[in-house]
Amino acid sequence: MKIAIIGGGALGLLFSYYLNQVHEVTLYTRTNEQAECINREGICLIEGEVFHRQLIQAKHIDSWNDTYDLIFVTVKGYHLSLLMPLVSQWPIKQGGMVFLQNGMGHVNWLAKLTAETIYLGSVEHGASRLNPTTVSHNGQGLTRLAAYRGTDDLLMELKGTAPKGFPFVNEPDYKMMLMKKLLVNAVINPLTAAFNVPNGMILANPFYHKIALHLFEEATTVLEIHNKHEHWQNVQAVCRQTATNRSSMLKDIESGRETEIDAILGYLVEEAARKQMAIPLITNYYNHIKGKEILMGDAK
Amino acid sequence: MKIAIIGGGALGLLFSYYLNQVHEVTLYTRTNEQAECINREGICLIEGEVFHRQLIQAKHIDSWNDTYDLIFVTVKGYHLSLLMPLVSQWPIKQGGMVFLQNGMGHVNWLAKLTAETIYLGSVEHGASRLNPTTVSHNGQGLTRLAAYRGTDDLLMELKGTAPKGFPFVNEPDYKMMLMKKLLVNAVINPLTAAFNVPNGMILANPFYHKIALHLFEEATTVLEIHNKHEHWQNVQAVCRQTATNRSSMLKDIESGRETEIDAILGYLVEEAARKQMAIPLITNYYNHIKGKEILMGDAK
Repeated sequence: MKIAIIGGGALGLLFSYYLNQVHEVTLYTRTNEQAECINREGICLIEGEVFHRQLIQAKHIDSWNDTYDLIFVTVKGYHLSLLMPLVSQWPIKQGGMVFLQNGMGHVNWLAKLTAETIYLGSVEHGASRLNPTTVSHNGQGLTRLAAYRGTDDLLMELKGTAPKGFPFVNEPDYKMMLMKKLLVNAVINPLTAAFNVPNGMILANPFYHKIALHLFEEATTVLEIHNKHEHWQNVQAVCRQTATNRSSMLKDIESGRETEIDAILGYLVEEAARKQMAIPLITNYYNHIKGKEILMGDAK
Repeated sequence: MKIAIIGGGALGLLFSYYLNQVHEVTLYTRTNEQAECINREGICLIEGEVFHRQLIQAKHIDSWNDTYDLIFVTVKGYHLSLLMPLVSQWPIKQGGMVFLQNGMGHVNWLAKLTAETIYLGSVEHGASRLNPTTVSHNGQGLTRLAAYRGTDDLLMELKGTAPKGFPFVNEPDYKMMLMKKLLVNAVINPLTAAFNVPNGMILANPFYHKIALHLFEEATTVLEIHNKHEHWQNVQAVCRQTATNRSSMLKDIESGRETEIDAILGYLVEEAARKQMAIPLITNYYNHIKGKEILMGDAK
């Protein structure tokens, strides 16, 4: 397939590296500098002690002048609105689109798109961008995809041609899939960033464990989830499997970058307001992280 | 007056230094080492750029063998129970007692005492202990005292003979006095320790400000306080007056010491349980600080 990947962050680099092994990939970046670096040096992927390098075509996002079978949108949720002017200028005959954002805030945004096929994704790989051309693949996982609109055809093709170590799984219900990940993110991300601890400490510290359970309870109430026990088992499993990792939100705070708090707890705050529910803990941690963003941004 | 001061922390050293100027003070410490140091070097008080030194008699707490007109108990609330065996062995004819602990947890404890006169105090001085013989007087304030049991006689004598820069004020209602300080401590101490910021940031950061107001609301509900507006003005005034200070709880966390969270939010948690009130934010910050105590204690 001819594939475009939008966004030169950790996910954009990771997907470009792997998908280019079996497809013809063009990576679209926000800056000219990054596109030039990648065209010159390729993308370097680090797995443990091993370095891999692969040449990949990269372009600045404004020089979009082609059509693709599949377009992966890997930018953070809060940058999606910047893409709107671009998307509206596309030739009508673009192919399918895949959205890999955290949270559920981006779902409402998809209705405006004209693409015939739209998939939503939930990425379970661990990855961090080390520099504009280098991504560290910290934890092998899988990419879950579910159709938001259109057929599963492109998804099946992607799944059938997946490179080694980079599997795709077909999910029947995009809402369930996103909610499952949202619950994990709503607990682990804000608390690790608030307490400045690796993921495992959320369970290992008995007082943080209590807080995690309270926050989880509120989130399941807002999302009107009934199989709470199953989801809590899942949150705990992720904490254990990624015990020594520092969450993306903690890393964002440490680097003075904007976090994804609006897509995660911000979405729950809006849902709760719509449903007129009281959510003291979600509100607290939303404000806590927003306050920390200002503080760390100022210190930068 | 013949005065005993129990506890060689910041308050114990501060009160010993000042009261010894007009009274005959003996300072009782938990360790022999500190008593010996003080007997050798005296107490050094630092105010801004100025050093003052004064010779003071110090003894180990176990060598108590005298009677006093007034006994100041300056140890932290969580150490009060350790004093019980000592107090029960005192000759009956001890004088009045003054308790300077934060929170209100110690008030229930006073009923067991046999002393005829008991005062409760609320200290508004800023002080930190720099080493076993040195205290820094960071902010001049006053000491409010209210009778819990007995007459105001000793209190009036203390007030009348107060040394320069160390005034005492007579308060009519010990509950009101302690509640006022508890509300200040319940908001400023846990939040500054949780966010790792100086006191002023609780108001200056708009998101922390929101959290402070929510926490304050819960605390006033538990304490059944009606003049909320007045108390919120007071909390804000203290934040502003001590804007650049790091709170005692933040300093305790930074040094891996036990905090006074049990005497402050722990007291509110118990009160709320007794009154069957839901207090999500107080519970959250109680657990937050307890979790941080473990974490910082382990790191020490």
